[in-house]
Amino acid sequence: MNTLTVQLGSRSYPILIGAGLLTRGDLIQEHVPGRDILLVSNTIVGPLYATALKKGLGDRRIVEVTLPDGESHKTLATVSRMLDVLVTNRFARDCTVVALGGGVVGDMAGFAAACYQRGVAFVQVPTTLLAQVDSSVGGKTGVNHPGGKNLIGAFHQPSAVIADTETLKTLPVRELRAGLAEVIKYGLICDEELFTWLEQNMEKLLAHEAAELTYAIHRSCEIKAEIVARDEREQGDRALLNLGHTFGHALESVTGYTKWLHGEAVGAGLLMAATMSSESGLMPAASVERLRKLLVRAGLPTEARELKPDTVLEHMRIDKKVKSGRIRLVLMRAIGGSFVTADYPDAALRRTLEAHLG
Amino acid sequence: MNTLTVQLGSRSYPILIGAGLLTRGDLIQEHVPGRDILLVSNTIVGPLYATALKKGLGDRRIVEVTLPDGESHKTLATVSRMLDVLVTNRFARDCTVVALGGGVVGDMAGFAAACYQRGVAFVQVPTTLLAQVDSSVGGKTGVNHPGGKNLIGAFHQPSAVIADTETLKTLPVRELRAGLAEVIKYGLICDEELFTWLEQNMEKLLAHEAAELTYAIHRSCEIKAEIVARDEREQGDRALLNLGHTFGHALESVTGYTKWLHGEAVGAGLLMAATMSSESGLMPAASVERLRKLLVRAGLPTEARELKPDTVLEHMRIDKKVKSGRIRLVLMRAIGGSFVTADYPDAALRRTLEAHLG
Repeated sequence: MNTLTVQLGSRSYPILIGAGLLTRGDLIQEHVPGRDILLVSNTIVGPLYATALKKGLGDRRIVEVTLPDGESHKTLATVSRMLDVLVTNRFARDCTVVALGGGVVGDMAGFAAACYQRGVAFVQVPTTLLAQVDSSVGGKTGVNHPGGKNLIGAFHQPSAVIADTETLKTLPVRELRAGLAEVIKYGLICDEELFTWLEQNMEKLLAHEAAELTYAIHRSCEIKAEIVARDEREQGDRALLNLGHTFGHALESVTGYTKWLHGEAVGAGLLMAATMSSESGLMPAASVERLRKLLVRAGLPTEARELKPDTVLEHMRIDKKVKSGRIRLVLMRAIGGSFVTADYPDAALRRTLEAHLG
Repeated sequence: MNTLTVQLGSRSYPILIGAGLLTRGDLIQEHVPGRDILLVSNTIVGPLYATALKKGLGDRRIVEVTLPDGESHKTLATVSRMLDVLVTNRFARDCTVVALGGGVVGDMAGFAAACYQRGVAFVQVPTTLLAQVDSSVGGKTGVNHPGGKNLIGAFHQPSAVIADTETLKTLPVRELRAGLAEVIKYGLICDEELFTWLEQNMEKLLAHEAAELTYAIHRSCEIKAEIVARDEREQGDRALLNLGHTFGHALESVTGYTKWLHGEAVGAGLLMAATMSSESGLMPAASVERLRKLLVRAGLPTEARELKPDTVLEHMRIDKKVKSGRIRLVLMRAIGGSFVTADYPDAALRRTLEAHLG
């Protein structure tokens, strides 16, 4: 078992990574202060893993909520349903919300935990690669609004993240690819070595090789934990984690969160950020090409010809990264050399959108 | 102008108390980081003060939301409406939510500010005595659930609290009385001197005497700020501020938040807490009588004969102060000597409910 710590003073918490951790009830119990647990999963993950997880939890009162699967259900209405269950079962402030599933389950269960009685304990048991390398770590919780992604939410750190790599065996390959987009992102942000390693090991990752997946998860969490510890509430450096996301969120939003998996949109978004960096004269075109090749090998989309540049631009403007009317972007000087800026030629943004869209 | 500071490290903020502050736009502007302001008020307060407040805000984009008046509208649905307005107007993360009104407006506007883009700036301009002495200070925001009061919410500290004592001139006397319940509470918690001062000045307060009201607000905020600074998230001492509230919340909840003003329910709740303290052999009956007299002089209710003890007890059990099945209460050893406990005779609770209810 691999252990990392997200350093946030009194709210520090461990990330545990390893095969079979989901059945290790002792690991979870340590972070459950009271008697009552709300176990949140979805219609796909619940039937696969809820029984195994519950077995380890011993003598607790466990109430289950099974959410519909998919980003299109990540709404305030779904969170409201969870809150109703908490109230109806008279859960007290010492209860714990356990999220068993991917990013959508974790984001919503975390937001319910943040809002119920102004904050109750929360444990993440991510079962997708994307959730294990990204969304379960760092305390961002929330839901989408018809007007934009993750516009409603809270910062609410979990008490623990328990990533069982065995669960990836049942993960559809499309979801595995989507998760790899976030791993590639970490390489692009600050770790060219990781990027090169991905170029060498992409096929092993796609073949679910345990050692390679564990390394990718560990290194991703390490980078994310380090950035979150430096800037929990995204006043500065944490914005780096949004590399590819301002483009990606717009792609998801324009298509009503139904066509693209989040990681797929991020994949295309990463390439758009790279193109934009090249169009702005920051990064050599050869690096953009290197990224394109890696994304193609990961089976990720690199364009969206069916979408209009103007429509996507419109959706980018409502993103949280807009500051006083100007869209802030994460751009790159090199692979592993990203930075946040609002200072770029508007024409480059236009050319970038036209290069990848309809 | 009186100034106090709530000491919370980097999130410290001022409480400004004085006559005419609402028109002092400069005081508010200092705490508004960006161009966009959502001004939240209700159908009663908006028409009275929104124009004066806006005049001082200068060259900002101000969008107004006017909520229906009353605790029965303090719901997730109303907050959702505010979030829709924020999204529809494409407000960015540097926007500010300004709450102009009483506790209900402040609690909901604050919760919307907490959730929008995971937290935007928030300024409280309380216009009721209750909001000025209690709810606008300390960062508790949220809404009611049909199953209980304030069960959904967030801790989200304001950037400033601006209490204009002039606004109390238009406050109905029933609301003034309700606010005085919270002032009496501070005396009971930790300041017998304040309690004695209230016994000497109750008529002046009810006659809207400016100097006396300002003193009562200042001293109340001072006590609250000190307790909040010590225990922002109610892990310990902050629970003292719930004196009378576990009883009071149940009275409000049983009656569907329509019959009692919050302060009225707290008034009756304070006396129930005192009776309970006496029934448990903690406080002399003479002190209970002293409190009863003061409440009667303030025009506050001291009983609720139309409610059944069993029904109220049932509603107390879903309160946030329940820990592992046991209701935690704030009791008193003396006026000014309150403490939190779950260690009391159940028979005393039963006798207390029977002494004040049907």
